[in-house]
Amino acid sequence: MKALVYHAPGNKSLDDVAKPAVIAPGDALVRITHTTICGTDLHILKGDVPSCAPGRVLGHEGVGVVEETGAAVASFKAGDHVLISCITSCGRCENCRRGMYSHCASGGWMLGNTIDGTQAEYVRIPHADTSLYPIPPGADEEALVMLSDILPTGFECGVLNGKVAPGSTIAIVGAGPIGLACLLTAQFYSPAAIFMVDVDDKRLAIARRFGATNIVNSAATDAASAISALTDGKGVDTAVEAVGIPATFELCQNLVAAGGVIANIGVHGAKADLHLERLWSHNITITTRLVDTVSTSMLLKTVQSSRLDPAPLITHRFSLGEAMAAYDVFARAAETGALKVIITP
Amino acid sequence: MKALVYHAPGNKSLDDVAKPAVIAPGDALVRITHTTICGTDLHILKGDVPSCAPGRVLGHEGVGVVEETGAAVASFKAGDHVLISCITSCGRCENCRRGMYSHCASGGWMLGNTIDGTQAEYVRIPHADTSLYPIPPGADEEALVMLSDILPTGFECGVLNGKVAPGSTIAIVGAGPIGLACLLTAQFYSPAAIFMVDVDDKRLAIARRFGATNIVNSAATDAASAISALTDGKGVDTAVEAVGIPATFELCQNLVAAGGVIANIGVHGAKADLHLERLWSHNITITTRLVDTVSTSMLLKTVQSSRLDPAPLITHRFSLGEAMAAYDVFARAAETGALKVIITP
Amino acid sequence: MKALVYHAPGNKSLDDVAKPAVIAPGDALVRITHTTICGTDLHILKGDVPSCAPGRVLGHEGVGVVEETGAAVASFKAGDHVLISCITSCGRCENCRRGMYSHCASGGWMLGNTIDGTQAEYVRIPHADTSLYPIPPGADEEALVMLSDILPTGFECGVLNGKVAPGSTIAIVGAGPIGLACLLTAQFYSPAAIFMVDVDDKRLAIARRFGATNIVNSAATDAASAISALTDGKGVDTAVEAVGIPATFELCQNLVAAGGVIANIGVHGAKADLHLERLWSHNITITTRLVDTVSTSMLLKTVQSSRLDPAPLITHRFSLGEAMAAYDVFARAAETGALKVIITP
Amino acid sequence: MKALVYHAPGNKSLDDVAKPAVIAPGDALVRITHTTICGTDLHILKGDVPSCAPGRVLGHEGVGVVEETGAAVASFKAGDHVLISCITSCGRCENCRRGMYSHCASGGWMLGNTIDGTQAEYVRIPHADTSLYPIPPGADEEALVMLSDILPTGFECGVLNGKVAPGSTIAIVGAGPIGLACLLTAQFYSPAAIFMVDVDDKRLAIARRFGATNIVNSAATDAASAISALTDGKGVDTAVEAVGIPATFELCQNLVAAGGVIANIGVHGAKADLHLERLWSHNITITTRLVDTVSTSMLLKTVQSSRLDPAPLITHRFSLGEAMAAYDVFARAAETGALKVIITP
Repeated sequence: MKALVYHAPGNKSLDDVAKPAVIAPGDALVRITHTTICGTDLHILKGDVPSCAPGRVLGHEGVGVVEETGAAVASFKAGDHVLISCITSCGRCENCRRGMYSHCASGGWMLGNTIDGTQAEYVRIPHADTSLYPIPPGADEEALVMLSDILPTGFECGVLNGKVAPGSTIAIVGAGPIGLACLLTAQFYSPAAIFMVDVDDKRLAIARRFGATNIVNSAATDAASAISALTDGKGVDTAVEAVGIPATFELCQNLVAAGGVIANIGVHGAKADLHLERLWSHNITITTRLVDTVSTSMLLKTVQSSRLDPAPLITHRFSLGEAMAAYDVFARAAETGALKVIITP
Repeated sequence: MKALVYHAPGNKSLDDVAKPAVIAPGDALVRITHTTICGTDLHILKGDVPSCAPGRVLGHEGVGVVEETGAAVASFKAGDHVLISCITSCGRCENCRRGMYSHCASGGWMLGNTIDGTQAEYVRIPHADTSLYPIPPGADEEALVMLSDILPTGFECGVLNGKVAPGSTIAIVGAGPIGLACLLTAQFYSPAAIFMVDVDDKRLAIARRFGATNIVNSAATDAASAISALTDGKGVDTAVEAVGIPATFELCQNLVAAGGVIANIGVHGAKADLHLERLWSHNITITTRLVDTVSTSMLLKTVQSSRLDPAPLITHRFSLGEAMAAYDVFARAAETGALKVIITP
Repeated sequence: MKALVYHAPGNKSLDDVAKPAVIAPGDALVRITHTTICGTDLHILKGDVPSCAPGRVLGHEGVGVVEETGAAVASFKAGDHVLISCITSCGRCENCRRGMYSHCASGGWMLGNTIDGTQAEYVRIPHADTSLYPIPPGADEEALVMLSDILPTGFECGVLNGKVAPGSTIAIVGAGPIGLACLLTAQFYSPAAIFMVDVDDKRLAIARRFGATNIVNSAATDAASAISALTDGKGVDTAVEAVGIPATFELCQNLVAAGGVIANIGVHGAKADLHLERLWSHNITITTRLVDTVSTSMLLKTVQSSRLDPAPLITHRFSLGEAMAAYDVFARAAETGALKVIITP
Repeated sequence: MKALVYHAPGNKSLDDVAKPAVIAPGDALVRITHTTICGTDLHILKGDVPSCAPGRVLGHEGVGVVEETGAAVASFKAGDHVLISCITSCGRCENCRRGMYSHCASGGWMLGNTIDGTQAEYVRIPHADTSLYPIPPGADEEALVMLSDILPTGFECGVLNGKVAPGSTIAIVGAGPIGLACLLTAQFYSPAAIFMVDVDDKRLAIARRFGATNIVNSAATDAASAISALTDGKGVDTAVEAVGIPATFELCQNLVAAGGVIANIGVHGAKADLHLERLWSHNITITTRLVDTVSTSMLLKTVQSSRLDPAPLITHRFSLGEAMAAYDVFARAAETGALKVIITP
């Protein structure tokens, strides 16, 4: 089958590889109908993710159709349309039982990282009963690809951890796909104000359309001063870091009000300064989280009830044969305006 | 009256000053019967607390007897025995109404900081109705001085923020008075293990007597390795920073398990490194907090019901005339073995 | 001044009474600009509320302008435009400090019950600092009358106690003003479905306009069966009782899913059957609550940020001189279509 | 093999039945080393549990040794010593994923109810990976039988649902095994007072030894008045119903303070009166729960760390051959003083 394979930092190709097979009794083999590229895939290609070995099929998002199941799979059968979670979860270990699937003893972020992923015609899904979700009939399956990773990530790491609440104020630093996913799902809780901070006016314009009450270009203005002015000098109840560099994390420390939360979503490659000499007495909370995808069922319900529309996050579409071009468009997002690109085998 | 006055960094004296008076209708004038010295007083004397101006009477802890009340004070009258909260709270502003008294719009940490404090014969307490607590008849009033600051601080900033729970594991870095207050109140929640980390064997021996299940001298051993071994390599559910320097905060980052909490209590004078390049995916929470003293009533109940005994935190006793000596003993705690020193006017 | 006075069950009149005055240092005297009538006022007139003595000026909702303040009032001064909370709260007692203002040791529901109320030209407000809220400039003051009681009641007793959440299902039994206030504020949390149950098709039509996803006329159909069918046989996550009779409370027991909540808002005059022989194993929660008005500030923010529009709850307007007619229209709501009637002195 | 078999209301016997076998890939076959009898078994024998068909082997508690596992069982192998949960949980369905194992779509309370149970030499455990718990080496296995049902039941349904907290007050109505399990685990949270209510002085004496701060014989005194006097007229923060009859549930309504919780544990056979005409405004919460056994791992940790000692709950020991005598002693608890009786095959 065709698959997008990581060979070395800076080196990937669309290869012919062996079709995967059911190995363990809990496995399912899924024929991919739609997949996509994540910012994390670009991190792998920069060589930032040592757990991902050369030869790996990339991709941890997608929807598809079950082709075959192992003997122990009870919830799915061949022909079922399924949403693939980016997190593999056994459902039995202590971490799974407390809802922290991201740290499953025999799962976690495996797809396109420690086992072959979804940017292919087929993928093997371990612990299928607890790592796949049934797609309701009539759903927009392409749009549901957004529920594999970015919507649960924006929601769990940003909105839930950030304790967004009716009447509260929130600043989201970073208007990329993850920041926008956070913006969309923050509105579940009716905050009074959502300030979107980025350096790209095009992305800020999208953020405005997606529901931001105010936009701040931090290249053009001092974001901390701007947001201080917008909040009567108090700062925000929730500051979401959705970039992954020290500067934006430090900016969040200047945005957050006493009693507020800094919710980190960004994937960081370096340490950051934490200004405890100022913050020790500010009653703040800082959270980090690899998405657990505990909210996937709930998010499906909000899509089914039209409270959430993931489709506008999709900007480009490619066939699997065009996967190299898809990567190119996605990597040059500032020029191409790409948010999420759909790849269809 | 006699009072301990801050004059400049490194300079304090026991002076004769004017007796305070009721100024605002919400004030109470309290005759101090017992007060004490806090590590924060030493910070002031190092010049670390610019809000504290020369001429200030120090001290933010104490018990006493109400001498006079302003016209608006409804809950107290002359002759009432009262516990003084280190935090002044108006009870009306938005922060008070959400339980964040530490950031009261017209209160917060004022005593011995922005207004004259308790190391004196008398003190004026603003917002008396919501900043004093009635002492039940028959209580050990000297011991209740521990409820002005260190017990609520250890409990709120360490135990509550740290989400200590039955069966959980907790490491407390720093076995000074605040760390020990955290140790005592952590036991309200029956954790499976409490690891106490310090560089002073004498304080560690006290921690053992106060209920620590394990002690670790971090000068003699690698604390992170030791605690990893004690937790099957997982780390602790709660790591409490009770020192206030970058090194101990960074140690906490090496102690905490995935899904755990770092609860900062320490007063920091410098920034610290936050290792987001490792922690971004560890699902951890970091909290800071200036004590709110929302738990004072509850702590009084635990003392009254003998679930908590604050008395062993007191190691030395002085008259107000000996206040300079009391400071000396307290400042040289490593030699003197001082935890909390009681000063009685 | 003119005021609507309760004389005996079934007996009220618009009388000339003495203008109230500031008595205690915490009092404010407020000139009423808009008030309204509550279902509870009708309960009083049926003789159901023995705490309300003959001679009492009725009314516990309203907005107005501060005319005079006692010496201890710090947050308000003459000329301030204020929202009056239906609950008087001292801000200092143990219940106030835990956010349960409804059971304030020297407050609670006093207005139009144990002291004279707001259906008058002037009203005396005890504990003014913590029982009044400043009205932001430019606000629609008439609409804010809805924040004195029914919006916090629907929100706190129904939505917060009912744990409404994104993707959840909720049934509200009773589409009167309180049920509709619950419906409006439930949408802060983006539930997947809100089923509105009533016997009045006109009110159900309003509920539909206000955001109900489904309406069920329980006079025409078996509501439990209808809602079972709408939830795949599971029942709802939240069942809100907003009527106050045994039959509707028992209906809620048939609507709630395992793991769900029955949130009672209704004022009940009789006991109800609780079917523990069935529910003991269903993992349900039942809550009751006299509104605490802890959410008033937050609700003001949602109004200011246009997340909530209270104005459509107002159906009729009267002068204070027409107060008897206002009561008549409100009492015959089934015929008149009245929701909330505004009375303007 | 030998097993205790339910034949009809009032009719049971110790029979020779076929040894169970692994049927589904997720099954484990466990050789029982210790089991016990539950009050629910007596309910079955009264004919109160229609889901339990004649011919059923009774018992839902026990420890044992794994004899054989199905192909899909990943966490256990032959020879492992295991604790059997009274609740069977698949770990995959929506209810399991939210921690409500009691309502597992293919599990719940099955053992000794809808499938053969543990009062036998062997038992088949479905969903073994998520329904068994490994016993740590060196543990007192007999004592761990108390963790199959009564300790998680007392803890989850009484203590967790009842929100027991440091400094709070709690009344437990019913000093049988479940009430005592609640008493033991309530102490995890250091409440200020635990009032134990029963009609049996012997059980109350045991409760006193187990940590009750006060005991009230409700046959000899008016329990509501007694507890009102003990709480300055306020009532208790938590009232636990651990009997299962209308009278005790109604007593709880008279014990609970404003803002408090009534946590039902009892298995009820009849409806009860709920006095909403009084309670609608008291801000109370009522909870029901079939134990989920989500706390089993945590309880194991508290036993391992000596925070909890289950052994004193065991009063009698029998061989499986004496099972009929064991039932007799357990059923006549008032005379025999039986709490939990251990049966060893």
